[in-house]
Amino acid sequence: MNQRLEKLQAWMKENEIEVSFLTSSENVFYLSGYFTNPHERLLGLAVFQDAEPFLVCPGMEVHDAKRSGWEHEIIGFSDIVNPWELVHSAIGKRINNVSKVAIEKEHMNVERYEQLITLFPKAVLVSAEEKMRTLRMIKDAKELKIIEEACVLADYAVEYGVSEIKACKTELDVLNAVEYALKQKGVTEMSFATMVLTGANAASPHGTPGGTKIQKGDLVLFDLGVVVDRYCSDITRTVAYGDINDKQKEIYDAVLKSQLAAIEASKPGMTAAEVDLAARRVIADAGYGEYFPHRLGHGLGISVHEYPSMTETNQLIIEEGMVYTIEPGIYVPEVAGVRIEDDVFVTADGLKVLTKYPKELQIV
Amino acid sequence: MNQRLEKLQAWMKENEIEVSFLTSSENVFYLSGYFTNPHERLLGLAVFQDAEPFLVCPGMEVHDAKRSGWEHEIIGFSDIVNPWELVHSAIGKRINNVSKVAIEKEHMNVERYEQLITLFPKAVLVSAEEKMRTLRMIKDAKELKIIEEACVLADYAVEYGVSEIKACKTELDVLNAVEYALKQKGVTEMSFATMVLTGANAASPHGTPGGTKIQKGDLVLFDLGVVVDRYCSDITRTVAYGDINDKQKEIYDAVLKSQLAAIEASKPGMTAAEVDLAARRVIADAGYGEYFPHRLGHGLGISVHEYPSMTETNQLIIEEGMVYTIEPGIYVPEVAGVRIEDDVFVTADGLKVLTKYPKELQIV
Repeated sequence: MNQRLEKLQAWMKENEIEVSFLTSSENVFYLSGYFTNPHERLLGLAVFQDAEPFLVCPGMEVHDAKRSGWEHEIIGFSDIVNPWELVHSAIGKRINNVSKVAIEKEHMNVERYEQLITLFPKAVLVSAEEKMRTLRMIKDAKELKIIEEACVLADYAVEYGVSEIKACKTELDVLNAVEYALKQKGVTEMSFATMVLTGANAASPHGTPGGTKIQKGDLVLFDLGVVVDRYCSDITRTVAYGDINDKQKEIYDAVLKSQLAAIEASKPGMTAAEVDLAARRVIADAGYGEYFPHRLGHGLGISVHEYPSMTETNQLIIEEGMVYTIEPGIYVPEVAGVRIEDDVFVTADGLKVLTKYPKELQIV
Repeated sequence: MNQRLEKLQAWMKENEIEVSFLTSSENVFYLSGYFTNPHERLLGLAVFQDAEPFLVCPGMEVHDAKRSGWEHEIIGFSDIVNPWELVHSAIGKRINNVSKVAIEKEHMNVERYEQLITLFPKAVLVSAEEKMRTLRMIKDAKELKIIEEACVLADYAVEYGVSEIKACKTELDVLNAVEYALKQKGVTEMSFATMVLTGANAASPHGTPGGTKIQKGDLVLFDLGVVVDRYCSDITRTVAYGDINDKQKEIYDAVLKSQLAAIEASKPGMTAAEVDLAARRVIADAGYGEYFPHRLGHGLGISVHEYPSMTETNQLIIEEGMVYTIEPGIYVPEVAGVRIEDDVFVTADGLKVLTKYPKELQIV
């Protein structure tokens, strides 16, 4: 049994849960090593306190699932059978009493839920999500290595994008050039929709890239991430095209100082709130507090947003093995939008910064 | 009240449903004209038999929702309130008795379902999905026009892809070139992951494009679609790179003949099964019956797979206004994979074929 399953089993014993039935692609992958997007078909991983776990997936995927390294039972189903009956029977072979089942309540839909409660009418259904988020929050060496690779590609993407900035190119021109360059390197998936924003668009924390042309004196903001072996990176850099004015520079400097303060504050034993506030204080002191409207950052892994959530109220203690983003920003309408974001890994005594593209203001 | 809402209301009256609460981006868009991907936040459209409908969405989107043309109430919520309480109160203002609520059981998750049954403990929850699928199946003139635009871009994509085929280019090279060319035309979303497959890869109905190089004597299969104003197109063409052998030609001819037979059979009053079988018979007669393992096609619209499902058992009657794909294929391992797919619109007396790239075997 792998360590991740063992940790889930320990939690199940503590909470007297006889079966955990995980259904999201991300959690099934985390626990089994097999990733698939089954679309409308059922995918499930059943875990028991002591009995052998099993995977249930569309029949045509059984071979792939085996090849992925999953060593326990795999139940494939064709489109003409009800997979829930197979699940019911496989659970019945392992245990007699099902009084408490953990599921992903934010993932499982009502139609499936109704199937499940018909099969186990006496069971109480609880959520496995908080536990899975907590397990996934601490990365092992193998996960770190993959995320580092994804960060190298994110650095490359920003570097390439900056080299593509020229007068009269639009945000979409630069964005398309970046994604094309990544595809040439074998990248097949971005962590989220790539953002290249300039001028007034960059002054919104969630702008959409469009046909706006880059002009002298503009700040250009890149926010992007690359998926490698299912793990995400996420970087933001803001660069200047030609000379920018003093106000823009002042804002850039405040964001950079804030970002460095949060890196400095990120140590095992601090709380997420303390790290957020270390950054937030710098921006407030510079007079831009009201223009930093979002949290400092978020955990990063198989999902682009996962635990820990770096907010000013989260009392969660920072621990070795966490990977999260540090991304303060200041958005002043009609003046400037600046965000600087790194992905970091918490070590025993501090931090390793995984994204390495320069943060001193780059003037193109 | 728009006609789509009126049709849903008529169904609600027939079935004594006091509230329909739709939550998928696709169905909310279909009924309200407002499209958004709210990620983990709530999006909902509440429809009543007679009372005014309302939209509930994240507060920062209220402005966009209004601009989209939705003329009824919009309830925005911030991240610090429970939107379900707002929904409960807005419903309470409209009706007193809630005994039957229609929801999207395949879309709503258990966590939300539990909120809903806490608010309406006496209500029976039924599925709105079958009704919504049936409503969306018949397209109006405006929808047809948008799908036609998406088909023009799909034709262009195949034409461009064919022009990029050269010795030593890989599947991914051609795929990236096609998507880049589409982006230059302003396309921001594909209907699904584009497929460019050659050689042995094309002989699987669901291959994944990779580093395989295109070689003389190969068939190259393109399967792709473009999203325009939220509507999808979907085209498949198979072309030859250099001379192909007689067996490959025989397979190509059988698929083309089968595809034309299904177009011929597609008329109002026929069943989906009759159309599927018209194509299936041609392939069986050519001796390749066992190598055509999938349905003939699927409806197309806001979703890339919707009603009608063109299977050999579906007794649904073909009606004017339906849009679906006709895409027979033959996949013989180690020999050839050929699929030819058009998008068609059913008219009063037959069909309009929306995708127009040539179907006679193209030799590059």
